[in-house]
Amino acid sequence: MSAKLEQLKAILAEVADLKNAAALLGWDQQTYMPEGGAEARGYQLGTLEKIAHEKFVSPEVGQLLADLKQEFAGADPDSDEVRLIKVTQHDYDLEARVPSEFIAEFARVTTLAHPAWVEARAKSDFSIFRPHLERIVEMGKEFISFFPPADHPYDVLLDQFEPGMKTADVRAIFDALRPRQVELIRAIAAKPQVEDAFLRLTYDEQAQWDFGVEVVTRFGYDWKRGRQDKAPHPFTTNFSINDVRITTRFDPNNGASALFSTMHEAGHAMYEQGSHPAFERTPLAGGTSLAVHESQSRMWENLVGRSLPFWEYFYPKFQQRFASQLGNVDLRTFYKGINKVQPSFIRVEADEATYNLHIMLRLEIEIGVVEGKLPVKDLPEVWNEKMKEYLGIVPPNDALGVLQDVHWSGGMMGYFSTYALGNLISAQLMEKIRQDIPNLDDQFRQGKFDDLLAWLREKVHVHGRKFEPQELVERVTGSRITPEPYLRYLSAKYGDIYGL
Amino acid sequence: MSAKLEQLKAILAEVADLKNAAALLGWDQQTYMPEGGAEARGYQLGTLEKIAHEKFVSPEVGQLLADLKQEFAGADPDSDEVRLIKVTQHDYDLEARVPSEFIAEFARVTTLAHPAWVEARAKSDFSIFRPHLERIVEMGKEFISFFPPADHPYDVLLDQFEPGMKTADVRAIFDALRPRQVELIRAIAAKPQVEDAFLRLTYDEQAQWDFGVEVVTRFGYDWKRGRQDKAPHPFTTNFSINDVRITTRFDPNNGASALFSTMHEAGHAMYEQGSHPAFERTPLAGGTSLAVHESQSRMWENLVGRSLPFWEYFYPKFQQRFASQLGNVDLRTFYKGINKVQPSFIRVEADEATYNLHIMLRLEIEIGVVEGKLPVKDLPEVWNEKMKEYLGIVPPNDALGVLQDVHWSGGMMGYFSTYALGNLISAQLMEKIRQDIPNLDDQFRQGKFDDLLAWLREKVHVHGRKFEPQELVERVTGSRITPEPYLRYLSAKYGDIYGL
Repeated sequence: MSAKLEQLKAILAEVADLKNAAALLGWDQQTYMPEGGAEARGYQLGTLEKIAHEKFVSPEVGQLLADLKQEFAGADPDSDEVRLIKVTQHDYDLEARVPSEFIAEFARVTTLAHPAWVEARAKSDFSIFRPHLERIVEMGKEFISFFPPADHPYDVLLDQFEPGMKTADVRAIFDALRPRQVELIRAIAAKPQVEDAFLRLTYDEQAQWDFGVEVVTRFGYDWKRGRQDKAPHPFTTNFSINDVRITTRFDPNNGASALFSTMHEAGHAMYEQGSHPAFERTPLAGGTSLAVHESQSRMWENLVGRSLPFWEYFYPKFQQRFASQLGNVDLRTFYKGINKVQPSFIRVEADEATYNLHIMLRLEIEIGVVEGKLPVKDLPEVWNEKMKEYLGIVPPNDALGVLQDVHWSGGMMGYFSTYALGNLISAQLMEKIRQDIPNLDDQFRQGKFDDLLAWLREKVHVHGRKFEPQELVERVTGSRITPEPYLRYLSAKYGDIYGL
Repeated sequence: MSAKLEQLKAILAEVADLKNAAALLGWDQQTYMPEGGAEARGYQLGTLEKIAHEKFVSPEVGQLLADLKQEFAGADPDSDEVRLIKVTQHDYDLEARVPSEFIAEFARVTTLAHPAWVEARAKSDFSIFRPHLERIVEMGKEFISFFPPADHPYDVLLDQFEPGMKTADVRAIFDALRPRQVELIRAIAAKPQVEDAFLRLTYDEQAQWDFGVEVVTRFGYDWKRGRQDKAPHPFTTNFSINDVRITTRFDPNNGASALFSTMHEAGHAMYEQGSHPAFERTPLAGGTSLAVHESQSRMWENLVGRSLPFWEYFYPKFQQRFASQLGNVDLRTFYKGINKVQPSFIRVEADEATYNLHIMLRLEIEIGVVEGKLPVKDLPEVWNEKMKEYLGIVPPNDALGVLQDVHWSGGMMGYFSTYALGNLISAQLMEKIRQDIPNLDDQFRQGKFDDLLAWLREKVHVHGRKFEPQELVERVTGSRITPEPYLRYLSAKYGDIYGL
């Protein structure tokens, strides 16, 4: 191997070690850390991140990257080596272009913005959060200014989470999607609602835990390279390709939410567990983008976990375990209940048919403020107008509207759309999977998921971050991200459930 | 504050962050890490330790220390500042004098020695381990050569764990102790043995856990700044003064071992939790030596937890919880049972009366090999001779003899004596405590331990690493470490139990 590539990989390995160590500190913070540990943990994370940053953006790494681009100019553009150099350069630009004074100032601004958002939401008073959000938007524009001009300024924000993705592409996809999702929701609203009261009974926590474990074990989540713990907000994290952990939480008033959350997180985790072993301790390990990551979590949670064939296998077991709650609920009633569509104010509680509309609303608002066309002060009003237009409902207050999500208070702009793109990709992959594995539903009916996982491993997981999201989707499905498969999926599923 | 001291403290804070992060990685490794995570964890720990080492032994730190010694030459020698400089210099010498090639070679040697020891013990065949131990002894001598000549070469090894402690001091203490402990054990052996079969029944694990939690909560272990988890080998670790965690394990055939282990670890943990808050992220945080640490764990486990007044309060509760095992066992029978003295082969299972003799045997052997007077090949024979002499029993094989402890395979030499010194210090402190708190036993009988903890906090814990062990003991008790209080404690206790 090239001596310079060896040198680069040695530095990248140490940076990976530091980031993986920081990830474990973060995992512990959200699972087991006693409250007294919080202050010291903040210092520890700060120190690890600072050292990782310094090591990564060193002039040595910049020079090695420049030299290696020369050295590998004629090499196979799809080789691991060339892709490693490319992905590392992308990360390097992202970290090196942003001055450390900006990062420090941004940390200060968001540290103050978070409690202001908490208070604003508690009081449902946008004016408390508004000056903080204005400052965050201003700094978002400053952040954009550190990068070369893009087709659209919002591209810079998007590129952090979806390498290579353009605002114009996302807009075109969403423009095609929106009217047809709105139309679908209206059609559903005109039909009688399905029953789901049986879900909102008390379900024993340990029995829920055990069932979730049984399901994701069958999916193929590798417990020798992972574990599950409880956390207030479920998440997946990893410290190696071989140590990818999930967390879950239990809602005492919902018998299925922990189960779907476990399937969702296991979807993320199996993606991370599937990276090529040779990518360990390199930037090629892990998921290529948030949207592709979300395509995996949604695949297992929704396309598998909320499908009828899945429940044809699992419902008898589930019903037996929760006989007092579900003894009189037949499979089809249960299936309809877990797929109930109802426009609601809160994104994180939205169903498959309405979810993307919550995202589009946020994307339009973010683009508007970045372009400078939408003043922050107008956000509550614009929010409510769009809710009315897309979902047919108007939040009674800003806590249920513009103030609901934590993201902006943390300075996070540019990634809401990854959630919706993930849904689209999941369906697009699934159409291809069904061509390659024609008897997929029969396999689900027998509780078999190995062919599905093997397909995802080979086509998606093993590549880690080698290919950008659009590139990966095109390599696998033959076309770039398109909303058609997801629309077909929704029409077929809800056509059946609601008799459209 | 001095600008240079600020500079030094900023570096030390980052080093502390890295070491604390590494400690969390170690905690996770022994509690929750899935097996797949092991390889990456090794890299992560290696990277954190390497960076912490590089930052600490940098010429900048050396220069700052030199400058600060000048700057603080006239300052109060007991001030935090002067002590911080002194302790940091001690740590610096220890880390900076040892060449990194030696450290790397030592890591290689012990990495090979460990599995050899495992195999040797399994087969009870010393010859498998012997060449590895010979190399480790050789490297121990090389380690000593990196330091200025001491009164005795073994001082250098001892000083790593007991700053300021001399081999001559330890020998003098042990020489005074040995004949009287041997005599005590012979006297006990001549008396009828106490009953303890009731301990070797099945005790519900959760009930044991709950009882342990109740006890250490009463002791004053602060759960807001700690937690307990299960681990194969119990240990205490910390990532901050405010995050000090304990672990325990359950022996299905012993109803009290987890409880005593929990008290022991809580004793270590309360010491760490009691460091002065200003010492956070400095080398002054934590216990001053392994012996003083052990004095705290043994204090709570033995001097408190195996005392009659303690059980006068707790036994009715314990008996009630384990009614089927202890319903017919009265307090005094129980008390005698948990204090049974019986010479045995395995150090970690030894009682209070025989324990120190296991240590003395090891110390004499270590000094012998370091002095070059005792060839490694003779160790099995020497071991068995001393066992016969001190404890009156001869191991039937080397697995139960010279091969029983893991320490030498890890290259650890010089710290076995800290275990015995800890016992002595605990009794020496306790005599002083009883002068200051005359109704201590009455307090125990009421389940009250706050005065004891407050005393330890003020006299021992709050000082962290400011004072060397001998210095600390002398400041608190008026004399340096002496075996008399421990001998008085053993005589009184076992005189009563065995009717001597």
